[in-house]
Amino acid sequence: MPRSNFSPSSCLEMKEKAARSTAEIAFVIEAEAAAAMMKEWGVAVAPELLVALVPAALRLARPPISNFHVGAVGLGTSGRIYVGVNMEFPGLPLHHSIHAEQFLVTNAAVHGETGIRCIAVSSAPCGHCRQFLQELRGAAEMQILVTSDGPGSAFLPLSSFLPRPFGPPDLLHKDHPLLLEPHDNKIALLDDEEETEAAGCGGICNGIGGALQERLRAAAAGAARASHAPYSKCPAGFAVADSEGRVYAGSYEESAAYNPSLGPVQAAMVAYVAAGGGGGRAGEGYGFVAAALVEPEGVAVSHEATARVFLSVVAPRAHLKVYRFHSSAAA
Amino acid sequence: MPRSNFSPSSCLEMKEKAARSTAEIAFVIEAEAAAAMMKEWGVAVAPELLVALVPAALRLARPPISNFHVGAVGLGTSGRIYVGVNMEFPGLPLHHSIHAEQFLVTNAAVHGETGIRCIAVSSAPCGHCRQFLQELRGAAEMQILVTSDGPGSAFLPLSSFLPRPFGPPDLLHKDHPLLLEPHDNKIALLDDEEETEAAGCGGICNGIGGALQERLRAAAAGAARASHAPYSKCPAGFAVADSEGRVYAGSYEESAAYNPSLGPVQAAMVAYVAAGGGGGRAGEGYGFVAAALVEPEGVAVSHEATARVFLSVVAPRAHLKVYRFHSSAAA
Ligand SMILES: [Zn+2]
Ligand SMILES: [Zn+2]
Repeated sequence: MPRSNFSPSSCLEMKEKAARSTAEIAFVIEAEAAAAMMKEWGVAVAPELLVALVPAALRLARPPISNFHVGAVGLGTSGRIYVGVNMEFPGLPLHHSIHAEQFLVTNAAVHGETGIRCIAVSSAPCGHCRQFLQELRGAAEMQILVTSDGPGSAFLPLSSFLPRPFGPPDLLHKDHPLLLEPHDNKIALLDDEEETEAAGCGGICNGIGGALQERLRAAAAGAARASHAPYSKCPAGFAVADSEGRVYAGSYEESAAYNPSLGPVQAAMVAYVAAGGGGGRAGEGYGFVAAALVEPEGVAVSHEATARVFLSVVAPRAHLKVYRFHSSAAA
Repeated sequence: MPRSNFSPSSCLEMKEKAARSTAEIAFVIEAEAAAAMMKEWGVAVAPELLVALVPAALRLARPPISNFHVGAVGLGTSGRIYVGVNMEFPGLPLHHSIHAEQFLVTNAAVHGETGIRCIAVSSAPCGHCRQFLQELRGAAEMQILVTSDGPGSAFLPLSSFLPRPFGPPDLLHKDHPLLLEPHDNKIALLDDEEETEAAGCGGICNGIGGALQERLRAAAAGAARASHAPYSKCPAGFAVADSEGRVYAGSYEESAAYNPSLGPVQAAMVAYVAAGGGGGRAGEGYGFVAAALVEPEGVAVSHEATARVFLSVVAPRAHLKVYRFHSSAAA
C-alpha cells in the first residue's frame, strides 16, 4: 500500500463533499467505482477516499442502545472498498453487538476479499476490535486512521494500536490459513433430519417451503465450509431468509483471544445489512421467516442455544433448523 | 505505587520458590500474609511478589477447550493480592469464557477492593482484556508485567499496551463511578413472583427450600445494587447455590466498548471459584442446585435467556428464578 500523503485541509473539503454526495453509499464499492470517485473528487490515493467516505458510513450505523454511531471504511487487496457500521440488538446481552471494524472485515469475508490494507474509522478502535483485527495476515502493518483525531490524524499501523499483541502466531502454525484467507472445512452433514426437525421447532414454527429450507441449508453449509475456527476446531455457518425468500449467510469467525470471536448469527446479520436489509433501522424490525445453522455435533462450541436466544428477540417468528456434521470432519 | 526494581535473576529464584511453595495459593491473599511472604522470600517490593506468584496462579486455570493456561496476580490499593485465571465452558460459545485479567478484577470487586495498582500475567493480555481494564480509575497508569516476555520483562503502564484508547471518558462524566468504585443502584423488586416462578421453571425444577431461595434473591439483589452498568443503565446480579447451600454472587460489569462486558453469570462463577469451588477442574462438574437473577424489567439488556443457556450446559439441574425491578429505578 502506498503511504497516504494525507492532507487535512483537502480532507475537510472531501468530507463535506462526501457528506453531501454519498447519502446512498453502498456497503461494497467496486474498484472501478472507487477509481471514478477518486477522479471526480480529486483524491490522489485510495486511503484518502476512505477518510472521505466515513461520514456517509456513519449514517448507516444501527446502535439503538448506545446511539453512538461508528463508521469504518476499508480498502481490500482487490481494490474494492468495504463499509462497516456498528449494530446493537435491544433485549440481548451486549456481546451480541457488532462493532464497525468487525462488520467491515465480515463484509469483506462475505464478498470473498482476501485482505484489508487500510481502514478509516470514525472513533478510536476499542481493544476488542484491535484484537479481532489480529486474525488477518500481516495485521501489524494494516494502516488505521481515526477521523475523530481531527486535522492531525494520520494512518498508523495496527501495531501502534495494539503493541506486543497476543494473536494467531501464539497458537497456530504460521502456514495455517487466517481470517479472509481461503478455508475449506470438511462438512458432511449427518442424516438425522427427523431428530433436528423435532428439536429445532420450539412451538413457533412457520410452515416454510422445502425449497427455501434447502437453500438455507446450502447457504449455511457453505458458510460453515468457509468458517475460520482454528482454535475450537468447530466451524459453523448460519443463514436467514427474509419474507421475500432472499437468503443471507455468514461464517463463524474465531479470534485467538476467544471472546472477540464473531458468531455465525452476527456474521449473517452483516451479510443481510450489507446487501441492503433495512432491519434494525429506526422503526424497522427484522422480518426473517426462517433460519438454518450448520455446526458440528457434540463439540466444544455450540451456537444453537445462542442462535435461538437471538432469534427469539430479533425475529421471534423465524423457524430455526439445525444441521450437524461429524466434528472429526472439521479441519 | 513504587516502581519495581525488578531483577530478572532474583525473579527466577523466586519463581522456583513460589512454584514449590505455593501449591495451595489462595485467590485472595491478605496484606499481612503478603508481607510475610515478601519477608520469607526476600522480596523488596510487592510487584516482585506478584511475579513470583504467577506460576502458582497458572495451575489454578480451568481452560478445558484451549488447554492454554493463563494466570494473573494483581495488587489492590488495600495491599491485598488477587489472583485471576482463565475459565472456559465446553458446549457454549466462546463469549462465555472468562479471561484471567477479568477474573482478577472481578475477584477484587467481589472482595470490595477499590483499585488495582499492578498486575503480573503469564502471557500478553489480549485486546479484549486491555479494553476491560480501561473501566478502572487511572487505568492508563496501571502497571503490567508479562512474565512470558522472559528475563527482560518489566512493569509497563496499561497505556503502553492500549495507546489512544476508547474508554469511559468517551461516554461518561468524569465523576461517574467506575468499575471497583462504590455503586448503589436503586433496586426495588417488583412483586410478581407468581409470574416469574412460572417462567423460571422450565420443566427441570428442583424443589429448593424457601430459605435458600431467599438467600439467593438477597445475594443477587445485592450484586445488582453494586453492578457497574452505566452504558445500558441495566444493572444486574446473579447468584448460585451449591449442594451444601453455599451462595456465590456476582455483579454485571459493563465495558464502554460493550462486548468486553462481563456478564453477571460469569461474575458469579468468579466468586464461586475464588471461594474454593472445584467445578470446572478436570473431571469435576458444577453442582449448582439453584440460581437467582436480578435485572430490570423490559429494558435494553437482558441476561435471562443467556443465563438459562449457561445453566442448561453447566448445571442443567439448577432451578433459576428471575426477579425484576423497575428500570426507571436504576442509576
Ligand atoms: Zn470495537
Ligand atoms: Zn484476555
